[in-house]
Order: sequence, then C-alpha cells, then structure tokens
Amino acid sequence: MCKERSLAVVGATGLVGRTILKILEERDFPVKNIRLFASDKSAGKELLFRKKTVTVEKLCDGCFENCDIAIFSAGASVSAAWAEKAEKAGAYVIDNSSAWRRRDDCALVVPEINAAAIRGKRRIIANPNCGTVQVVLPIFAIEREYGLKRASFVTFQAVSGSGKRGLDDLLATRNGEKPSFYPVDISKTCLPKIGGFSTDGYTEEELKMIYETRKILSLPSLPVSATCVRVPVKNCHAVAASVVPEKPFTLSGIRNALKRQSGIKLLDDVGRDVFPTSAAADGKDEVFVGRIRRDLACDNGLLFYCVADNLRKGAALNAVQIAETLIW
Amino acid sequence: MCKERSLAVVGATGLVGRTILKILEERDFPVKNIRLFASDKSAGKELLFRKKTVTVEKLCDGCFENCDIAIFSAGASVSAAWAEKAEKAGAYVIDNSSAWRRRDDCALVVPEINAAAIRGKRRIIANPNCGTVQVVLPIFAIEREYGLKRASFVTFQAVSGSGKRGLDDLLATRNGEKPSFYPVDISKTCLPKIGGFSTDGYTEEELKMIYETRKILSLPSLPVSATCVRVPVKNCHAVAASVVPEKPFTLSGIRNALKRQSGIKLLDDVGRDVFPTSAAADGKDEVFVGRIRRDLACDNGLLFYCVADNLRKGAALNAVQIAETLIW
Repeated sequence: MCKERSLAVVGATGLVGRTILKILEERDFPVKNIRLFASDKSAGKELLFRKKTVTVEKLCDGCFENCDIAIFSAGASVSAAWAEKAEKAGAYVIDNSSAWRRRDDCALVVPEINAAAIRGKRRIIANPNCGTVQVVLPIFAIEREYGLKRASFVTFQAVSGSGKRGLDDLLATRNGEKPSFYPVDISKTCLPKIGGFSTDGYTEEELKMIYETRKILSLPSLPVSATCVRVPVKNCHAVAASVVPEKPFTLSGIRNALKRQSGIKLLDDVGRDVFPTSAAADGKDEVFVGRIRRDLACDNGLLFYCVADNLRKGAALNAVQIAETLIW
Repeated sequence: MCKERSLAVVGATGLVGRTILKILEERDFPVKNIRLFASDKSAGKELLFRKKTVTVEKLCDGCFENCDIAIFSAGASVSAAWAEKAEKAGAYVIDNSSAWRRRDDCALVVPEINAAAIRGKRRIIANPNCGTVQVVLPIFAIEREYGLKRASFVTFQAVSGSGKRGLDDLLATRNGEKPSFYPVDISKTCLPKIGGFSTDGYTEEELKMIYETRKILSLPSLPVSATCVRVPVKNCHAVAASVVPEKPFTLSGIRNALKRQSGIKLLDDVGRDVFPTSAAADGKDEVFVGRIRRDLACDNGLLFYCVADNLRKGAALNAVQIAETLIW
C-alpha cells in the first residue's frame, strides 16, 4: 500500500475546490491530513471531509510546512503568488490555474496521456484548461494510431466553468434579473468570448486550447485553432472537433482507437439515438465521445463531438489523478 | 408603383407565420387582400393584420384561386401536399419547408445572392433552412471576391427554430418540468442532433446546410461539412464558420467584402468588445458577423462567427424578400 500524504487544497470553497474534496473521498485517496485554504472572505468557514469538519484557513507564511501535495484552484494570481512557496516548502503543487502552464520547466499533464512529463521538471505541475483536457484525450487516442496533421475546435462551455459567479448569473438572469457577472444576459445568448481578446483576434481561452493541446501532445508545431463559446448550460462542456489524421482511417478503426483509450467512453450509436449530452456526462469521470463521422469538407478529415463534466475531468478529477501519479 | 397582390400565408399561427405577418406590415408590402391558413386545430382563430381581424381558415380545394403569392410555413408534409395545388391555381409559392429545396426545377433563394435563380424554374420557390441563410450570406460575400475551396460550420441553434413547441419545452424544463418535445432536458444541455440521422452519421439539418449552401452558391461540388447543435437559447442562431478562400486574403479585405454585402452588418471590433450575440440580433433583419480572424489550423484559412434572428432572416424575412422580387 502507498503511504498516506498530507494535502492542502487552496480555493477549497469554490466549485472546483469542493469537487476536489468529493473526488478525494470517492477515490479513497490516502490522506494523512488535509488543510483547506481560501480567500479572506471564506476563511473560518467549515467544510466536511470524510465526515469530519475542517475549518478553512487563510494562506500565510509557513502554511505549506509538512505538506506533501498542494492542489491550487484559486485563480492565476493566487497561484502566481503562492505556488512557489509551497514548492520551496517541499510540496508538490498541482495548479488548476493558467499561471504555470506555459512554463517550460513545468509539466502540463493529463495523466492518461503524459504522466511521464513530470520527470525532470519542477514540483509545480499544471492542470490544463477545462476545455483542453476533454478534447485532447480523444485527439491523443487518434494521433497515437493515425498521426495528426491539424485540429480545430468549437466549444460549448457551461457557466460552471466560470465558477459559482457564472452559475449564479445564469440562474439570476433566467429569473429576469440583470447580469452581474457576464457582459450579456447569458440566459438569452451564447457568448463568443471567454477571457480577454488578443491582438490576433483570438481569446485567451482559445489561445489556451491551442497552446495546451500542442504541449500535452508534445507536438509544438501542430496546426490548431479554436472558437470558444459560453452557452447557457449549467454544467458540462461540449467540443465539436475537426481533425485531419496523417494516415487514412476507417471510422471503425477510429472507434476502436477511442475505445482502447482509458478515460473515454463512446456514446456513438446514432441509429439508436446515442450521442453525448450534459445529462450523460454530469457527475461522471469519462470524456464521452460521439457523432464520429467523416468531415465532408476535407480529404481524410474526421469530425467528432465530445462532452465531459468540466468540474471533474476538466478540473478536479484531472488534478486528483495527477496527485495519484505522485503517491506511488 | 407596383401592383398590389393577393397573398396567402399557410401556417399563419406558427412562430414563423406570425413573423411573416409582422414583416409584411413593417415593409409595407403591397397587399390587396390576405388569407391566412393553418391546421384544423387553429382554424377559426383570429389574427390581426394591419389592424384588421383576419379569421384563420383550413386549407381546402380551390382556396388558392386568385392568389398571387402563397407563403407556406406549415412543415414539409403540408407543402408537399398543397404547394403544387397553389402553383396550378396560378400562384407563386414561397415555401419555408424542406419539401421542394432539393428539386432541380425549383429555385432555392436568398435574394441578396441569387434572386435570378427563379428565372426558368417552377413557380414554387424554396426558402432555405434557417441555419443556411445566415451563414451563406457572408460565405457568398467572401466567395465572390476570393473564391472558395471549402467551408465548415458548427451551429448554435435556438429553440425557436423548432417553433412554439421548442420554446415551450425550454421554458417548461427551466421550471423543473419534464421535457415534452426534445429528447433531453434542453434547459440543461446542448443537443447535437437536429432532425433524424442519415447513414453517414450526419443529421438532416447538417445535410440541409451542406446541400443548400452548394445550391444557393451554384457550387455543386464545394466541399462543405456541418455540425448542428441545439442550444438552450430562445431565439437567434449562431454559426461558427471556417472557410478556406482560393485566393490569399487580408483580414481588412475580408471585412470590406462583408461590409459591401447587403444584408450583413459587421460586429467585429474585439478591442472594444464588439462581437455578435442574440441580444444584438433579436428582432433585427441583418446577419451580424464578427470574430473574424485567421484559422491557425490551416493555410489561408479564415474563421468567423455570425448570429441572426432565425425567425426573421432565417425564415420569415427571407420569404418576404423573395415575395418582393416577384412584385415588380
């Protein structure tokens, strides 16, 4: 049996933080003790972990002493300020923000794909963006067997990806209140902007998907594009993907490649009306893949559509899976 | 001045039918008289047209006598059964269903693009699918100046595209009721299925977009693909489009081509957070185009995102615009 570890969860009261606690419980993660951290506003709150009450603390100097693994999910500025302190105190940091993903000395990990990328890198390990995790897993399964010339993504991203403020704004605007978080009434429209715009017209979220897909697959010059759109759905992101494998393929060959990939479940039987939806993915660990068909717009092109619980595989689950690679 | 015409609207009580009446009023269409038809269930209802009450009738033999233009929006089976009778009675038929779109002897018309296609064809003129109309207009503007190698679409389609039953189902499921129209709780998920599935894995809606884009542009072998997704938005469809022009382009050249196109309004200034949303398009006539940028996944590729009121330019407005081409 593996040794029990001392854990810290930073951002424990957020949607992802709470999901991390739930998943640590579900998966019987070997926890010796756990400390929960959050913003000044949430410090003092009490959360249940394994039926015991844990009081949420403020981050402070020395708070990562004797910590083995710190999972951060409190936004990029908190991670930028505190992850290195945890690392210096001897902890592994698994960071759910964008703060460390682009660092060459930090691994960006989806354990089913590149758990080994951690070797020789810093103890700060980046957890990818929620949209990236779910689409890079089927892309990896296809690329491994057929190679990959290029990939394009169009996302349908749930408001839970913005955290509690996103969820609250959807519910409030549905009830006729004015938006207080999104720049539009998200109950009435799709919003083709997630994060700020860059000078080339792409949003931060789109550039994350492009950069992170390349880094996780170790294909730094892979041509990738993305259009990221917020939709008025509470939970579970969807991605419509278009890829061009290098080798000729059959659809049954693609389905078999996806079936062999740990972390993926096919929902792909249109004759029986089987395809991925949020209802199928909500609260589940797998990336659900379906609508697999040839891309009629280009030679050897392939289309698919995938849905995953963005709070789980898109964030908390993937972070805990990274932690699991560290405990053996 | 043009002569006043006798009109019939079939399916007058539906969402599109009512929008047709509103648009005929707004545009001062020269109406001599108007007869409104609907299903047995709706016959006897009264609708206002130009402040006068018009009683809705059932379709019956001879009901198109002396009718100049009949606009059908009552579904494909009604159009299949009745459009030819109206044509034989001497009327022009503008059909909003899919019944006549694939007929070589019937024109499929977006007036800004191919009004002339009516010449030499039958008097039954097909109105394209709501998703097609809005994306084919910017595609046409680009193709005319730069040529076109291929086009791919991913749609975000509002529930009003399913008519009143779609709208009612969204509102009911938001209130916790069980779905009665869509196969899933549409308030909680995107639904990657619009229409039945074909053997190649595409849905009817997707095949409509592919076929209709080619027919309207008179490019029968243009490589096109589509992924059509219903989203929990009341009104206004969005389309994320990816195209590859034949000639090299600059983004300012593309913007100018789109600006010159009647029926299009650019909302494309990301530096000032200007991009298309349902709020911008709802109740408006134009196709709103934005998020114009290079497709980083392929050479000479272009991405854009457009939104239009699917009840107006996607259906009723385009039908009335076709009628306008017939009255001069």
